[in-house]
Amino acid sequence: MADYTFFTNPMSRGQIARWALHEAGADYETELVDWTAKPQALLDANPMGKVPTLIHHHGGHDHVITECAAICAYLAAMAAPDLAPTPEECADYYRGLFFGAGPLEQAIVAHAMGWEVPEGKEGMAGFGTYDRTVDTLEKLLSGRDYVCGERFTMADVYVGSQVDWGLQFKSLPERDVFQSYAERLRSRDAYKAAKSVDMALIEQAQAAG
Amino acid sequence: MADYTFFTNPMSRGQIARWALHEAGADYETELVDWTAKPQALLDANPMGKVPTLIHHHGGHDHVITECAAICAYLAAMAAPDLAPTPEECADYYRGLFFGAGPLEQAIVAHAMGWEVPEGKEGMAGFGTYDRTVDTLEKLLSGRDYVCGERFTMADVYVGSQVDWGLQFKSLPERDVFQSYAERLRSRDAYKAAKSVDMALIEQAQAAG
Repeated sequence: MADYTFFTNPMSRGQIARWALHEAGADYETELVDWTAKPQALLDANPMGKVPTLIHHHGGHDHVITECAAICAYLAAMAAPDLAPTPEECADYYRGLFFGAGPLEQAIVAHAMGWEVPEGKEGMAGFGTYDRTVDTLEKLLSGRDYVCGERFTMADVYVGSQVDWGLQFKSLPERDVFQSYAERLRSRDAYKAAKSVDMALIEQAQAAG
Repeated sequence: MADYTFFTNPMSRGQIARWALHEAGADYETELVDWTAKPQALLDANPMGKVPTLIHHHGGHDHVITECAAICAYLAAMAAPDLAPTPEECADYYRGLFFGAGPLEQAIVAHAMGWEVPEGKEGMAGFGTYDRTVDTLEKLLSGRDYVCGERFTMADVYVGSQVDWGLQFKSLPERDVFQSYAERLRSRDAYKAAKSVDMALIEQAQAAG
């Protein structure tokens, strides 16, 4: 049995987790999830029934990790010490991951759904406005190559995926900082290896469908 | 100078960060932020202008941490090893923190704002529905005392604050699992110490206003 069981669908945020697995050099097996017939093993592990869901068979137990950013942080902590933060990088690392998983994700979803935060309720929403959130993302990535500065860490798999997807699906504006950051990430071997697996799976599904 | 500068307002999510600071036994000084006149030092550190924002004066640099969950994870990693996860607890720890900061926060905000995810777009929204997210939170906390099982960790400061606030402000339904979890947390010395500071600041502000 592989170390990790990876429930995913190639047309999902599972692409983020697969990239993280390849960055970590993890030994994993993929369980493809059909939206219309979710396997019981997935529902047992994650009552949300969401992909990606990762199970780490470790120390005699099955450890379930859900949420893409949590999968990135977990793999860095457990399997890829080089991609975990040094003490000096910890602030940028956690700030980046939680800014991405919190305000940025919320702002992008609200924007896509056409939800507007009523005036005076910005404090309640956390992200405030889409524009302010995008500007903050740009500032966080300005004057540096990666979330933690000069060095690629697992935070870039998560934040970088949001930028990469945001540019592809137009949920983020095209800005030079975002473009050059995404290009740096797309040139990575693990990125290319992971994406080629998902692209092949998507092609197979389209040929079969 | 204290190790940490803590920008907050007592009537904000800053209460979560103060609790975390007290759990970590951190040496910090508070900078109270008036919503109508945000100090430049805060805006320089955090272009979102949000509180809480924490600055750690460490290793000759100022390290800025924003987002409540990031502040919890950072303090555990840097200042409170006993409240950081063991390898066996890592999966629950990161899953709890990112479930709280992602789907749970999104679901609570959307519910409070009256935003409904259109049918067929649940995948895009990440949290799916408010009810499913609340049920998942209940399952994550069932049959255990804390996010990681038997032992309190810094993940409980964040997830626990969401439960504690959710019950107080009725943004979460009253369920036994939530009530008993919140009671365990409210009995902690660091919780009581931190809350008493914020309550005193709120009373002062009300007396002055």
